[in-house]
Amino acid sequence: MARHRGKTEKLYVIPLGGLGEIGKNCMVVQYGDDIIVIDAGLAFPEEEMLGIDIVIPDFTYLLENREKVRGILITHGHEDHIGAVAYLLRNINIPVYATRLTLGLIEGKLAEMGMKLPAESKAVRAGDQVKLGPFTCEFIRVNHSIPDACAIAVTTPVGTILHTGDFKFDQTPIDGEFADYRRLTELGKRGILALLSDSTNAERPGYTPSERSVRPNMERVFREAKGRILMATFASNVHRIQQAIELAAEMGKKVAVVGRSMENTVRIALELGYLNVPEGTMVTVDELRRVPLNQQVILTTGSQGEPMAALSRMAVNDHKAIELYPGDTVLFAATAIPGNEKSVARTVNNLYRRGAEVIYDRSAGVHVSGHASQEEQKLMINLTRPKFFVPIHGEYRMLLKHKQLAEACGIPSENILIGENGTIFEFTRNSAQITGKVTSGQVLVDGLGVGDVGNIVLRDRKQLAQEGILIVVVAVDREEGTIVGGPDMVSRGFVYVRESEGLLDEAKERVKRALADQMQRGLPEWAVLKSSIRDVLSKYLYDKTHRRPMILPIIIEI
Amino acid sequence: MARHRGKTEKLYVIPLGGLGEIGKNCMVVQYGDDIIVIDAGLAFPEEEMLGIDIVIPDFTYLLENREKVRGILITHGHEDHIGAVAYLLRNINIPVYATRLTLGLIEGKLAEMGMKLPAESKAVRAGDQVKLGPFTCEFIRVNHSIPDACAIAVTTPVGTILHTGDFKFDQTPIDGEFADYRRLTELGKRGILALLSDSTNAERPGYTPSERSVRPNMERVFREAKGRILMATFASNVHRIQQAIELAAEMGKKVAVVGRSMENTVRIALELGYLNVPEGTMVTVDELRRVPLNQQVILTTGSQGEPMAALSRMAVNDHKAIELYPGDTVLFAATAIPGNEKSVARTVNNLYRRGAEVIYDRSAGVHVSGHASQEEQKLMINLTRPKFFVPIHGEYRMLLKHKQLAEACGIPSENILIGENGTIFEFTRNSAQITGKVTSGQVLVDGLGVGDVGNIVLRDRKQLAQEGILIVVVAVDREEGTIVGGPDMVSRGFVYVRESEGLLDEAKERVKRALADQMQRGLPEWAVLKSSIRDVLSKYLYDKTHRRPMILPIIIEI
Repeated sequence: MARHRGKTEKLYVIPLGGLGEIGKNCMVVQYGDDIIVIDAGLAFPEEEMLGIDIVIPDFTYLLENREKVRGILITHGHEDHIGAVAYLLRNINIPVYATRLTLGLIEGKLAEMGMKLPAESKAVRAGDQVKLGPFTCEFIRVNHSIPDACAIAVTTPVGTILHTGDFKFDQTPIDGEFADYRRLTELGKRGILALLSDSTNAERPGYTPSERSVRPNMERVFREAKGRILMATFASNVHRIQQAIELAAEMGKKVAVVGRSMENTVRIALELGYLNVPEGTMVTVDELRRVPLNQQVILTTGSQGEPMAALSRMAVNDHKAIELYPGDTVLFAATAIPGNEKSVARTVNNLYRRGAEVIYDRSAGVHVSGHASQEEQKLMINLTRPKFFVPIHGEYRMLLKHKQLAEACGIPSENILIGENGTIFEFTRNSAQITGKVTSGQVLVDGLGVGDVGNIVLRDRKQLAQEGILIVVVAVDREEGTIVGGPDMVSRGFVYVRESEGLLDEAKERVKRALADQMQRGLPEWAVLKSSIRDVLSKYLYDKTHRRPMILPIIIEI
Repeated sequence: MARHRGKTEKLYVIPLGGLGEIGKNCMVVQYGDDIIVIDAGLAFPEEEMLGIDIVIPDFTYLLENREKVRGILITHGHEDHIGAVAYLLRNINIPVYATRLTLGLIEGKLAEMGMKLPAESKAVRAGDQVKLGPFTCEFIRVNHSIPDACAIAVTTPVGTILHTGDFKFDQTPIDGEFADYRRLTELGKRGILALLSDSTNAERPGYTPSERSVRPNMERVFREAKGRILMATFASNVHRIQQAIELAAEMGKKVAVVGRSMENTVRIALELGYLNVPEGTMVTVDELRRVPLNQQVILTTGSQGEPMAALSRMAVNDHKAIELYPGDTVLFAATAIPGNEKSVARTVNNLYRRGAEVIYDRSAGVHVSGHASQEEQKLMINLTRPKFFVPIHGEYRMLLKHKQLAEACGIPSENILIGENGTIFEFTRNSAQITGKVTSGQVLVDGLGVGDVGNIVLRDRKQLAQEGILIVVVAVDREEGTIVGGPDMVSRGFVYVRESEGLLDEAKERVKRALADQMQRGLPEWAVLKSSIRDVLSKYLYDKTHRRPMILPIIIEI
């Protein structure tokens, strides 16, 4: 990608994550020999990714071009935007630019892995500009479900790219920080070459309600609660927590925070001034005990029914500090992320069993999305009137819908590009096209291992999970050419041995006969021995059980 | 449970499935030495039940009392009401009583397992009565999302129990068969001792819309479709299929059915007269090819994104008979059952990728529930005015909500009993109480095995799934007291060997050292050898990888 002067200068935008999916957002912007990265997030493993902790983007392209990378800019502090930063920094030491809350959260994640922020990293404010090589990067305030979220405008010799980050337009934001409409229209007037915009809610008509709209509904729940109140919400939703704290203070209640990620986020938010707590309102869990039940408010993790989270454990009476009582009101100020519906239902049922009153339906009005719905997405397009439009941050159906919205706003269809992770979007002053692909994909993190669990291991785990394993050990004396021990059989995850002894005994007899057959012509190759063991067992076991355990013959030489 | 004459006569109602869950419905009714069973359904396995095909009720109580069981009555043909009948009949040969469609579906399932209906089984019509010992059992028409669904009234010397089955009240049913309001009020006037009622939609206010309300929305989709139409719905939803066929016929389109369960159900429904197909409207898939695309309607399975179902395969171009084209319209006339949201989304994204237009939101109005919402549940209570009320067919939160609805209708709180599977509800003419429990629970079916996969096997499968297995084989000569072969190590689902050779080599060295240590005092007990192998490996592997594979030491004697 050599640099050409004048009108044929090219700017490349390459998503490494976030397109065709919700998760692991990562955008590469390249001009000549200079690269910047916007966001590096994680995705949660799919059901089939057995044993996998998190999924991060395949950073191969950046590693292959490491000397070109000037820095990484982060739009906001959600996991799907910061969760992979540590893994990237381990390989490429580049400065991180982000607003203070975002940087604080990143620092916490790095510390967990024994790392520190690179020296030139910098906390920025919305409105600040950062110059990195040929890129002038400007942070522009937007609203989202975490404070201090920004869009990022990247000005280059070719033109300006505006990356919205995750956004909504909240006309009555809790912290009084409006989206920077002026700057968006100014940049639009100056000329935005391409708008890269958040597609998450492209299938939702209308506007996303303001965070403030939650308040009267939350208040009604708080006032109607006869006893203690427990509210579960996303740990990162500082504004939701702010509203709960304010309500509690107005009603003379005390608030304690429970659950590691929420305690963490609240601590950072307090330190950095993102949370305002009236004097004396927030107390420790221990101090809360001395307060009458009907003056207690507990803010807790577990809004997604995560088995290890505080609320889920309280629901089965397994939390070391908090026991639930009949008369408690539990409020889910969150919605179930797709995939989590059953775990949420499980927790709700358990909470009811413990005698709690549970409020968790969307109709309770105590949760609003952090993402723009259709009208706001169109507003973003019309504030900025970009030349070209690239929908990002969404599954394919959301990207497609977002394209249709842009067309409805008068962006010509040929100026709208739908891509996928790895797509090379090539821009000049006057053109936009898809010109190829770079390496991209998923890297699976399991324990300390990054990328070493691949398809083969997952495929094996899947068979082990569904069917179990049957191990057959045979000891051979190679010199003598004889079988001297076994066949010994051990099974795990296949049948419960005591109940199925007849089955396994008969299976062993068949293996013996098969081995005896094989041995008639002398000791065969190991591969042949193993093959004959597998064949006779898989047939026999399937006939008897209709199951296909992994059959693992092991030949040990003495 | 001896029989007492007069006022102290007792009637027992014992759920073996369906309480505290959605699935595997099964109700036992016992009077003295006579038992009847209402429904025997299956449940789908939870995510943690690795490798399990279906879950059925634990029938121990019935097996222990087999000589008392007079027959089984089925309310309707859904899997969660008929899916375990075969497994029950394999153990207790009792006649089956059900409406014709229900019996036809049961016969199909039995045939798949090489079984036939017991000789005295009988197809009944709504309104018929069946006498079994002291029980007079009457089938009473209700509406549901499958034709010929009935409530069952069981009259005994103690009083009448009314089991609603699954129901809604549809005032404009597709087949013109209204719920039998007259009989319900007659029985109520005569006196219903206890009402056992479907709690599924107890959290939904209002009324469930009529099946007919789907028609105008379906018509709009059919008319707006420029090309071919594919409609995915539940195979058992014969009325939905009926409406689609009628619409197609009106519009001069041809209909083909694709997908095993749908082809099956349509065949049975046609044979038994539950489906009315205008002459020439239904064709085979092959015949459909000769029809212009914009006159084609394909009814298909896959509404839940089931990976092997027809629509899911079409979406990834893996269906042997049907390829999707841009211009196709795919209509999901179903809603995602909780737990299936992600598979549905996956299929939807794939369909969009193939260029299809996809309509799948609840707001499209092409699906309505088959279960009563709150107002209908209250109506059922008020039509029947039972003395006692037992909410059934629901998770705990639904049972609880249903109880609150009954209280709102004036049923005294002490006359409403919430139980769980296994609960013994004891009724006399004047009282109702919970008096104990019988054996109950889940029986897991995996392949041909019923109940042999239990907790230990599942626990092992879970560890294998998450972490994989590392097998260490050592050959010993017991007489000589020496180790003669190994330690050989094999892993599956843990690491990809080629990439992790260093790790496994070092692990082997450590095992060798540990074994050498152990051998200093002569060959120890096998248990000691295995233990030392496990200890050294689990620590080493966790330090290096933060993973905990199953470690399986095997000692083979030569």
